Amino acid sequence: MNECKIIIMGFGAVGQGIARAISLKKNMIREKVGIDLKIVAAADSSSSAINIDGLDEELLVDVKNNDGNLLNYPECGSDVAGANVLDAVEYDCLMEATPTNIVDAEPAFSLTLKAFNQGKDVVTSNKGHLALKFRDVVNAARENNVEFKYEASVGGAMPIINFTKETLSSCGIKSIIGILNGTTNYILSRMTSEGSAYDVTLKESQELGIAETDPTQDVDGIDAACKTVILANSLLGIDATYSDVKVEGISNINSQAIELANKDDYLIKLIAEVSPDNLQVSPRLVKKGSSYDVSGTLNMATIHTDLAGDITVMGLGAGSLETASAMLTDLISILKNKN
Amino acid sequence: MNECKIIIMGFGAVGQGIARAISLKKNMIREKVGIDLKIVAAADSSSSAINIDGLDEELLVDVKNNDGNLLNYPECGSDVAGANVLDAVEYDCLMEATPTNIVDAEPAFSLTLKAFNQGKDVVTSNKGHLALKFRDVVNAARENNVEFKYEASVGGAMPIINFTKETLSSCGIKSIIGILNGTTNYILSRMTSEGSAYDVTLKESQELGIAETDPTQDVDGIDAACKTVILANSLLGIDATYSDVKVEGISNINSQAIELANKDDYLIKLIAEVSPDNLQVSPRLVKKGSSYDVSGTLNMATIHTDLAGDITVMGLGAGSLETASAMLTDLISILKNKN
Repeated sequence: MNECKIIIMGFGAVGQGIARAISLKKNMIREKVGIDLKIVAAADSSSSAINIDGLDEELLVDVKNNDGNLLNYPECGSDVAGANVLDAVEYDCLMEATPTNIVDAEPAFSLTLKAFNQGKDVVTSNKGHLALKFRDVVNAARENNVEFKYEASVGGAMPIINFTKETLSSCGIKSIIGILNGTTNYILSRMTSEGSAYDVTLKESQELGIAETDPTQDVDGIDAACKTVILANSLLGIDATYSDVKVEGISNINSQAIELANKDDYLIKLIAEVSPDNLQVSPRLVKKGSSYDVSGTLNMATIHTDLAGDITVMGLGAGSLETASAMLTDLISILKNKN
Repeated sequence: MNECKIIIMGFGAVGQGIARAISLKKNMIREKVGIDLKIVAAADSSSSAINIDGLDEELLVDVKNNDGNLLNYPECGSDVAGANVLDAVEYDCLMEATPTNIVDAEPAFSLTLKAFNQGKDVVTSNKGHLALKFRDVVNAARENNVEFKYEASVGGAMPIINFTKETLSSCGIKSIIGILNGTTNYILSRMTSEGSAYDVTLKESQELGIAETDPTQDVDGIDAACKTVILANSLLGIDATYSDVKVEGISNINSQAIELANKDDYLIKLIAEVSPDNLQVSPRLVKKGSSYDVSGTLNMATIHTDLAGDITVMGLGAGSLETASAMLTDLISILKNKN
């Protein structure tokens, strides 16, 4: 294999980040791994650009930003979308970045299984199918003898899955405690520093583009709970699904509670716990100056191991290019295994 | 390969930690990788125990702790030591844990080159040969087509080398800033919390076994400077050696300076900087509550990347079993590549 043909499904912030990351790093990857990356298709929910000879990464991003879709990508734009894209062009790896769907895991679940059945490797940033049907997806990859990697589904740019599997492979993992949602961490940090009320802070965060127009997934702890399930399955071998997580969000936290905690040198954080006895996302008191004292949109996780003690990692939990960098690392790892 | 025969050279805290870690994890490794680990020799500076059929890990540690050497290991104890051990028994991998020597890198340098010439893989926790002759050692491994891994040489149990190479492989590394010496961090943390003088705190740390009887390597910044060189070479591709690092230790830090910093919400930390423009170990002011605000013997490092932003990792910088866990992870990685 001296070429890897890529389909990007989902062309929002993360999908565009993949295109930009490939544009920035394809020369490095050619030098390092000896393989040329070529995007042969990129698709959003209603349109796509498809070309077996390769698409221009920067042009894809420009067309999408100008038009809101890919219909007018020169000569290659079309209304082919969804699973049909996987039949429209020969490819090696699906980079799946469609929106997380915690109700029925679609379109990620069907797209991923289709790619596996076609014998293709898949890299994803999606949480829905992993939170609802982790075993089904991972088993399907194994049965089809393809690779499936999902570092970007938890922690964005913060390595945690490959980190634990590869650089702590000698250790048993006892539990993982962390802050896995950047938006709620931003809101709580800001309520602490400004003394502001929840509703006001949420509104400001929405205006800054940090919280979404419908902030439910973040503020109700749903996003962090999905990540909790993914870590439970992938790193602790716990056969759990989304409904196994006890979830409480941050919408009941008021400025009085934060002030009271602050007086005693504590902070209120939305903490995810992944342990054999407990899968839980809830607001908790953490000591100021502890490793949980990270501000803004940062994510962090402390991995409790049997041999190495506690190892903590922190990094940006979101961001277009940042999340794409985790997906590109997954892709490089797949390419290295092919060589 | 369904068996890996191991020689442990150096049987102090880390060497004994390797034996204990193998004892604890050999079943897991057999299940995971399908390879049986067998210690065929363990040696300190004057004695060894050698048996092609395998030595008992716990008994090795017991004999060493009781006698101070391995001469009386039942039936297998001997005065064979040094490089001769590598000729005395057939083996697959050298786990090298002799003391760091920053003057002439011995015995690590000769032992390592001899193992390479014998076609054997090497895992090390040693800093001396890497700080003085990084390129020579790495090139010799390449020329002999063997594997050479050295995660434990920097940060003890805190993953940083494999972490950066493997889980941030899509990123360019711009610089690394960190606290790479646990002893000095302990002394400075304690001076801060107790308001105590440097000499008093050093003496207390020695009594607790945290600082060594001759604390020079730690307090003069030599240990952190070695690690700076190793990170510069391995992660930033800088062809540097120990003498390229600007080094200043902590022995001139007095309690007044710490108090003054403290009043402005700053701490004094011994910071290592690894960047293309600057290889430096020196006391610096860091903001309280920042990611540099780690106390006790913890190590930490912030990796500045081009795609993923800043990624921070922290963990125990020393410890027998903790450091051995990093070496065992290196070994597992080598074994996986053989399969």
